[in-house]
Amino acid sequence: MKEKIPTRIYLTEEEMPKFWYNLRADMKEKPEPMLHPGTLKPVTAEDLAPVFCKSVIEQELDETTRMIPIPQDIQDFYRAYRPSALIRAYYLEKALDTPAEIYYKFEGTNTSGSHKLNSAGPQAYFAKKDGLTSLTTETGAGQWGTAMAMACGFYDLGLIVYMVKVSSEQKPYRKALMETYGANVIPSPSNTTESGRKILSGDPNTGGSLGCAISEAIETAVKTDKCRYVLGSVLNHVLLHQSIIGLEAKTALDRYGIKPDIIIGCAGGGSNLGGLIAPFMGEKLAGKSNTRFIAVEPASCPSFTRGRFAYDFGDTAQTTPLIKMQTLGSGYIPSANHAGGLRYHGMNSVLSKLFKDGYLEARSEVQTDVFDAAIRFMKVEGILPAPESSHAIKAAIDEALECKKTGEKKVILFGLSGTGFFDMTAYSSYNDKTMSDHIPSDADLERGFASIPGIPQNK
Amino acid sequence: MKEKIPTRIYLTEEEMPKFWYNLRADMKEKPEPMLHPGTLKPVTAEDLAPVFCKSVIEQELDETTRMIPIPQDIQDFYRAYRPSALIRAYYLEKALDTPAEIYYKFEGTNTSGSHKLNSAGPQAYFAKKDGLTSLTTETGAGQWGTAMAMACGFYDLGLIVYMVKVSSEQKPYRKALMETYGANVIPSPSNTTESGRKILSGDPNTGGSLGCAISEAIETAVKTDKCRYVLGSVLNHVLLHQSIIGLEAKTALDRYGIKPDIIIGCAGGGSNLGGLIAPFMGEKLAGKSNTRFIAVEPASCPSFTRGRFAYDFGDTAQTTPLIKMQTLGSGYIPSANHAGGLRYHGMNSVLSKLFKDGYLEARSEVQTDVFDAAIRFMKVEGILPAPESSHAIKAAIDEALECKKTGEKKVILFGLSGTGFFDMTAYSSYNDKTMSDHIPSDADLERGFASIPGIPQNK
Repeated sequence: MKEKIPTRIYLTEEEMPKFWYNLRADMKEKPEPMLHPGTLKPVTAEDLAPVFCKSVIEQELDETTRMIPIPQDIQDFYRAYRPSALIRAYYLEKALDTPAEIYYKFEGTNTSGSHKLNSAGPQAYFAKKDGLTSLTTETGAGQWGTAMAMACGFYDLGLIVYMVKVSSEQKPYRKALMETYGANVIPSPSNTTESGRKILSGDPNTGGSLGCAISEAIETAVKTDKCRYVLGSVLNHVLLHQSIIGLEAKTALDRYGIKPDIIIGCAGGGSNLGGLIAPFMGEKLAGKSNTRFIAVEPASCPSFTRGRFAYDFGDTAQTTPLIKMQTLGSGYIPSANHAGGLRYHGMNSVLSKLFKDGYLEARSEVQTDVFDAAIRFMKVEGILPAPESSHAIKAAIDEALECKKTGEKKVILFGLSGTGFFDMTAYSSYNDKTMSDHIPSDADLERGFASIPGIPQNK
Repeated sequence: MKEKIPTRIYLTEEEMPKFWYNLRADMKEKPEPMLHPGTLKPVTAEDLAPVFCKSVIEQELDETTRMIPIPQDIQDFYRAYRPSALIRAYYLEKALDTPAEIYYKFEGTNTSGSHKLNSAGPQAYFAKKDGLTSLTTETGAGQWGTAMAMACGFYDLGLIVYMVKVSSEQKPYRKALMETYGANVIPSPSNTTESGRKILSGDPNTGGSLGCAISEAIETAVKTDKCRYVLGSVLNHVLLHQSIIGLEAKTALDRYGIKPDIIIGCAGGGSNLGGLIAPFMGEKLAGKSNTRFIAVEPASCPSFTRGRFAYDFGDTAQTTPLIKMQTLGSGYIPSANHAGGLRYHGMNSVLSKLFKDGYLEARSEVQTDVFDAAIRFMKVEGILPAPESSHAIKAAIDEALECKKTGEKKVILFGLSGTGFFDMTAYSSYNDKTMSDHIPSDADLERGFASIPGIPQNK
């Protein structure tokens, strides 16, 4: 059968998913609900209505509907850049001299450079459908901001992107790309919001943070007529949209009768990992497979491997609902790491629960090892990977080399969530050997944990 | 039938071309041969042997073999990133409200960002096969240099890239990307060659030019053991390799019984245009179609529309063989234009001949109009186009709008040869409205024509 499997597998339009898959519906042990930070009661649709658009709130709170129809308009939107290729890594297998079969689902060929467009499109569509005229969001590395700029350009919605100031300075081209799509990109903290002004008055030279950018984006959304806030990861409706990745991958593999033994994804807030593993995890929860699932995170921001499972805030300003999740504490400040998309203190609640319950493994990697793996991959497979995605490459290579030792012919699937075209400063520092690794000390972590709110954690 | 055509058409591996198509074999009126600049006699394989590798010279001089087998190794190499998608521009059609059907062949999803990898792979493969250990080349915009860096990384060959100094300063990320693939990138002019030192002694602060970079690359290749020079456009073996674009596109269209009425490509040296149109032009030459072919070039470098059909040098240092082509003169200095890949004084000899004989039309466009078209395209189709490729978009939109006027339901195919991820400074200048247009005066052109050698032009 081996020679029959093409290097690149594309679904036909008939095979493309017409439903998103809501993994929560198949979990006997559901993740605990988001809590209102004031009342400590489960949040309601009304609580979320000032911040998020209506359709998205429904999806966020729905834990029983298994298959949620993808609106025809979004099916058409997806067709403009999907299906993404499922690629058999023949060259990587050969270079590693491994008996393992390696596949990867490559989400980087759209202009946003990553899987983020899979949720940006639907979020803009639902906003338009709900009668909104503009949206706000924040961006760090810039992939989410670019995806939202594309989606809002497409659906003719206004968009304000609060971009972490240090990122907007380091990545002027990311900013220019969002502006080209018509977005208004504001370096954060800014003078446009109270939270921004407050932070600036304390430290006029601050480079900003994702937490601060979130606060500014939410504040502006709440204050603006027919405007809401959108988020690119962590929340369950985002993972729902991203299930398109796993659904496509599973259909492609099923066509050839391939069952993955190991599925690997990088993990920041969980959008790419959660999307990729969803339908495969559903089978595992139903007792139909023994697939192993591995989350890979940076050693500098180890929310799975060294975090706590606790109710915590989603932002550093502590204004969001409380989420039960693997967290380092909303006050945790990750060291500079080039994988900006993975520098988040928390983790999606479904993935956190699956990890806690033993269905999902996790490991952390230092960035020089991650870039070693990236270079090894790109020289034979040709694709320049994002630093985030390269965490998954590192683990895939390690598992393939383990197969070489044991002689096992395992099937490995990993998510290649994006490209590194806007990360060349990181690659340069790797080339120049000026890149360094940082592993937080236990004391560093304790300082973060101290910010976890003291509320009953085992309700 | 319309609704049956998918947005993205991919060939299966079985459908992938196993031969390149040599259009010259089907031309009754062949292009005139390259001449040795000393003897003014047609160049021989021996003349070219010190500069180019043997297998490539055979292809360059072969004007009779119609179908040239793609080595199995290169078929495998192509499979790592091909087939490229043939995309039906449903959203662009809708935005233009045109009865025309618009298709584009998108070559930008590989890491080099363009079609250049289609020839870089074979050129590196043949170099390896012929026993070489390293190669030299030059790059301006950087797409060719990146493609060669990828190919040499893959085939484990050394590579020196002479990068036009001003480009290496404006595009440090391009340089970093080539270095990440293991290439040695030298800003040109440099102290590593005689021609470089000569130019530097005259003007130590020069930003360099493509002509100078070519001279340095050739000099180094000739002086180095087991090393040859590679070129990414203009020459016939490059167009031969690029025929993969047109062959794939034709197979995809044939599957649905679609016959293009108009085929459009941007034109610098001709590699993308020549590759796209080859098999369709073959049918036209055989009297089997009435397809119109349109080359689109920048108004600042109008070798088709305002150039002369004459024997001329390929480089500004006047060291290459003489090529009968549409040329502005090797001494022509194009004004700064963001479409760096189209800033070449000459044109491939086959395309020049087809233009001269009336088979190929040409038009020129100013860059602000080209960027207007690019923005219009990217907002609905999602893809950030390279400035070069956007010349083709401009003409495709114009033709589609013409159909809207006349009510004709023409089928338009254009080549989207690359992405603009490394061209954000150009997009920024468009966004900031600091971009300006330059159309050379007749006197500007006369200065260029004066550099065309005074040899018998009608042999």
